Amino acid sequence: MTRVYNFGAGPATLPEVVLQQAQEELLDWQNTGMSVMEISHRSKIFMALVEEAEQRLRDLLAIPNNYKVLFLAAPSRSQFAMIPLNCLRGNTQVDYLDTGMWSHMAVKEAQRYAEVNLATSSEANGYTTIAPREQWQCNDKAAYFYYCANETVHGLALHDIPDTGDVPLACDMTSCFLAQPIDVSRFGIIYAGAQKNVAPAGMTMVIIRDDLIGHAHALTPTIDNYQVIADKGSLYYTPNSFSIYIANLNFQWLQRDGGLAAMQQRNQRKAEKLYHCIDNNDFYQSPIDPAYRSIMNVPFTLADENLNDAFLQQAEAAGLSTLKGHRSVGGMRASIYNAMPEAGVDALIEFMQQFAANQS
Amino acid sequence: MTRVYNFGAGPATLPEVVLQQAQEELLDWQNTGMSVMEISHRSKIFMALVEEAEQRLRDLLAIPNNYKVLFLAAPSRSQFAMIPLNCLRGNTQVDYLDTGMWSHMAVKEAQRYAEVNLATSSEANGYTTIAPREQWQCNDKAAYFYYCANETVHGLALHDIPDTGDVPLACDMTSCFLAQPIDVSRFGIIYAGAQKNVAPAGMTMVIIRDDLIGHAHALTPTIDNYQVIADKGSLYYTPNSFSIYIANLNFQWLQRDGGLAAMQQRNQRKAEKLYHCIDNNDFYQSPIDPAYRSIMNVPFTLADENLNDAFLQQAEAAGLSTLKGHRSVGGMRASIYNAMPEAGVDALIEFMQQFAANQS
Repeated sequence: MTRVYNFGAGPATLPEVVLQQAQEELLDWQNTGMSVMEISHRSKIFMALVEEAEQRLRDLLAIPNNYKVLFLAAPSRSQFAMIPLNCLRGNTQVDYLDTGMWSHMAVKEAQRYAEVNLATSSEANGYTTIAPREQWQCNDKAAYFYYCANETVHGLALHDIPDTGDVPLACDMTSCFLAQPIDVSRFGIIYAGAQKNVAPAGMTMVIIRDDLIGHAHALTPTIDNYQVIADKGSLYYTPNSFSIYIANLNFQWLQRDGGLAAMQQRNQRKAEKLYHCIDNNDFYQSPIDPAYRSIMNVPFTLADENLNDAFLQQAEAAGLSTLKGHRSVGGMRASIYNAMPEAGVDALIEFMQQFAANQS
Repeated sequence: MTRVYNFGAGPATLPEVVLQQAQEELLDWQNTGMSVMEISHRSKIFMALVEEAEQRLRDLLAIPNNYKVLFLAAPSRSQFAMIPLNCLRGNTQVDYLDTGMWSHMAVKEAQRYAEVNLATSSEANGYTTIAPREQWQCNDKAAYFYYCANETVHGLALHDIPDTGDVPLACDMTSCFLAQPIDVSRFGIIYAGAQKNVAPAGMTMVIIRDDLIGHAHALTPTIDNYQVIADKGSLYYTPNSFSIYIANLNFQWLQRDGGLAAMQQRNQRKAEKLYHCIDNNDFYQSPIDPAYRSIMNVPFTLADENLNDAFLQQAEAAGLSTLKGHRSVGGMRASIYNAMPEAGVDALIEFMQQFAANQS
């Protein structure tokens, strides 16, 4: 078996040791004689797993006690409607940042439920930079302020947590979740789909401050009511148990490897190397303002677009997979999540330099 | 490794050959050098998998062309709200059968969106029988008629498809899906959570007639709009890709083993044996009217409830797991889904006879 370096944006590469453990115990988990996929979510051993996963996540992120942690059997996109449905609290006004494809779609969905004020939008600059904080038009009566910390498609990231005064921050961290320590207490709600940095797709983690729970709109489907899920410890309905299981293995792996501070160092180093390669070779360009470059998703273009297919084919042949940029952006994109080893980034850089040299 | 016979109601036992194949290729699926969990849902190979899974399901159930097949990343319970949100079509009246815990909860959720008429309810008889069709009070102006074909908790099943004239039938088949052939053309909408007879939890299959699509209530979350999911071939959002993959392996297994007609014969034989054991031993009782007994979930009680714990402990020691009845019902429950081998039922019967003999 030859494993490749998978630079796909998601579902994305997982730590090989996590997959190996899952493989070993796939037919017999914890001496139950069953697969973890087959075990009742009401069994003591599975409920203990959910508690363990929650505690590991709390430890990794130092989540304060006045926040609930929820594991939803839902795509991350579920939050586009769930946040307005749950968190308007009788208000009709909300603030959004439009900094890439995902926040743009979140805006569209929120407009179905509320009056959306765009505090700033990067649409006009092609999602390559973000206006400085002092130019944003914020509404201090907004029910919440929503943004996406890391735009997976465009590779645009807001590295600082915006100060929005008393307006609670709602943040989509799907593609940068657990990539570095964060101060959870600055947020009202953080969510992340599992399929980038954590576990197989079909599960979304929500970290939500107590006071934002319990105000759902009357028509909210019961399974989308944060209060209901929180009251039942994420077991109101049958959860995506396999994804929670892999998430727990991933959390263990992070803890063994030095936690999020160590992970941040590795991620910074990987990203710096790759941007350095792009910036120091005329054959490659990054479209993104250096102040807002993602450390997870690195889009770049070739000097000659006619060579895109050759680049992708030769990369694939070299075991460097899924480097094609998103269909809406074109070019290339290297997603270098937690589970991408530094050796994978080194191999990509070596390939890029060789490919460029071959063209000159 | 010793695998047990797992009689749990769900997440439930899966075919061992399916688990073995998943185990073998868990780190390298189809020579991609990636796990199926890690591969982009936009890749050709994964999109081909979704098409293959859909086609296999269409072939197994002979689904007519005017029905869409959807794979949702959602718990089965999502349909309690999605059906009224999508299928009222301006109407406010709906018919429901209340035949067990699951349809009872579906009624509660539907009451938040519509005027629910209970065509009949088994609540007063403790969900042990269902009034005959001619006693039901149906509303021929209802937007749809909803029922649960097999109540997992109570073991009560409606074996005949109700005739509701022009009122479309909406059916929860979660715990009897693919247990036997069905005439899909009799239904407006069929849905089933994966975690009983198909795949790991966190995925729900919906089979819906074209004319019921496209009428969603204005506040329906976009991901809950059948039209949106259907238009994108179940890839509007990142799907529960691992569950779809296991479902496809399960469909293959069903096809290799003779399809649903052969499966029905096996399931009937397994259920008849087990009910025969219960009915012919004074130590065991089935609370359910024989005309409405589930062939998937078989609840039973012991003559002496004080022996429940001993029964469960000795069964567990004999490799017969998860036989405890649902917390709301008590007693025992043996779920004998497709993946429960006949040898498992035989072993259970032998154990039950021996246990009863030991008490006399």
